[in-house]
Amino acid sequence: MHSSPNQGHRTRTGQERRARTQARILAAAVRVFATRDPHALVIEDFIRAAGISRGTFYNYFRSVDEVFEAASRWLEDDLIVSIEAELAALSDPVDRLVTGIRLWMKKAESDREWCAFVAGSGARGEKVEQSLTGDLHGSRDAGALEFPSVAVARDLVVGTLREAMVRMTRERVEPGYPEEVARLVLRGLGLDAREIAARMARPLPAMRRPSRTVS
Amino acid sequence: MHSSPNQGHRTRTGQERRARTQARILAAAVRVFATRDPHALVIEDFIRAAGISRGTFYNYFRSVDEVFEAASRWLEDDLIVSIEAELAALSDPVDRLVTGIRLWMKKAESDREWCAFVAGSGARGEKVEQSLTGDLHGSRDAGALEFPSVAVARDLVVGTLREAMVRMTRERVEPGYPEEVARLVLRGLGLDAREIAARMARPLPAMRRPSRTVS
Repeated sequence: MHSSPNQGHRTRTGQERRARTQARILAAAVRVFATRDPHALVIEDFIRAAGISRGTFYNYFRSVDEVFEAASRWLEDDLIVSIEAELAALSDPVDRLVTGIRLWMKKAESDREWCAFVAGSGARGEKVEQSLTGDLHGSRDAGALEFPSVAVARDLVVGTLREAMVRMTRERVEPGYPEEVARLVLRGLGLDAREIAARMARPLPAMRRPSRTVS
Repeated sequence: MHSSPNQGHRTRTGQERRARTQARILAAAVRVFATRDPHALVIEDFIRAAGISRGTFYNYFRSVDEVFEAASRWLEDDLIVSIEAELAALSDPVDRLVTGIRLWMKKAESDREWCAFVAGSGARGEKVEQSLTGDLHGSRDAGALEFPSVAVARDLVVGTLREAMVRMTRERVEPGYPEEVARLVLRGLGLDAREIAARMARPLPAMRRPSRTVS
């Protein structure tokens, strides 16, 4: 099909506008999900929070479940941008675990909306799970960590971080709390005290700001 | 007020019957809550599961929330009978922690309804929390465990056990899984490997069967 450069431009700006509106709805949705019981929500709650019309909402989503799914994927992408980008530079699986757990806690501390959403919804990131179990396998195979099954180790990491996020959503924690959570988890995984001290003494890389604050 | 021995008897049998009916509703409620999303439930679901009339239901509870609250308390009492009764014989806080965590996992493995209910509902037992944090304080003060705050230690224990219960609700786990969860949690709390091995070599006391299976 023939299309003039001008038509191409129109399509692009249309797509950009559409992406901006969707980001605006999702940003509002995260706020709504973070502060209220997801099961008690109706579409009106999102329309009001995003300041859009009912018609606009239905151009993007058909149900609360759909908004929830999209918000989960969107936050997972946000997490991957924030954390996985930093981990990509690391090849040692123990380094990746130590840094990943510390960054996760730092993200929870610095981005309370994200923290409340993930803690409250029980949202699970497939990619994050794969990355975590891969590094647990690698660390055990390298003899750096000791546990009988990756399932037990994974449950220790995910369960403790989630409980910590529930606490951080409910109350103000001590300044050292996020790093101490990481330290106890690493000890539970069998990393010895000297290794923990040495690896956690390294400064954490700065994370990119979440993309959704820009939109 | 005056009352004949016979009136006293009638009152007692009336109370017993009432307690039996309430236990029957609660036992059915636990099954219902364990298998379905609590937010999607209506009173009809409990009436059907317990095989009672609507009128009988309203003699005991007025709403789904009330059944849920009562079922939580009832399961907590059940847990306290099962676990706290065993812990009462132990005075060393580390022994109490080791035994309590192991019994909790054993209970989750042997009583899947209880496991699914607690994992799915996020029910929190006030008395269990008090017992746990008391023993964490005691173990740290005695120099047997090392962590900077009881909050971090408590989140490691509760978070990992809850995640383990979620897994046990969803899939069949390896036979050694419950004990390995306990071992990793104790290591995370700073108990050294030899102490863990020695304390976990002791056989677990047999727990009383849950009272609700009798009713």
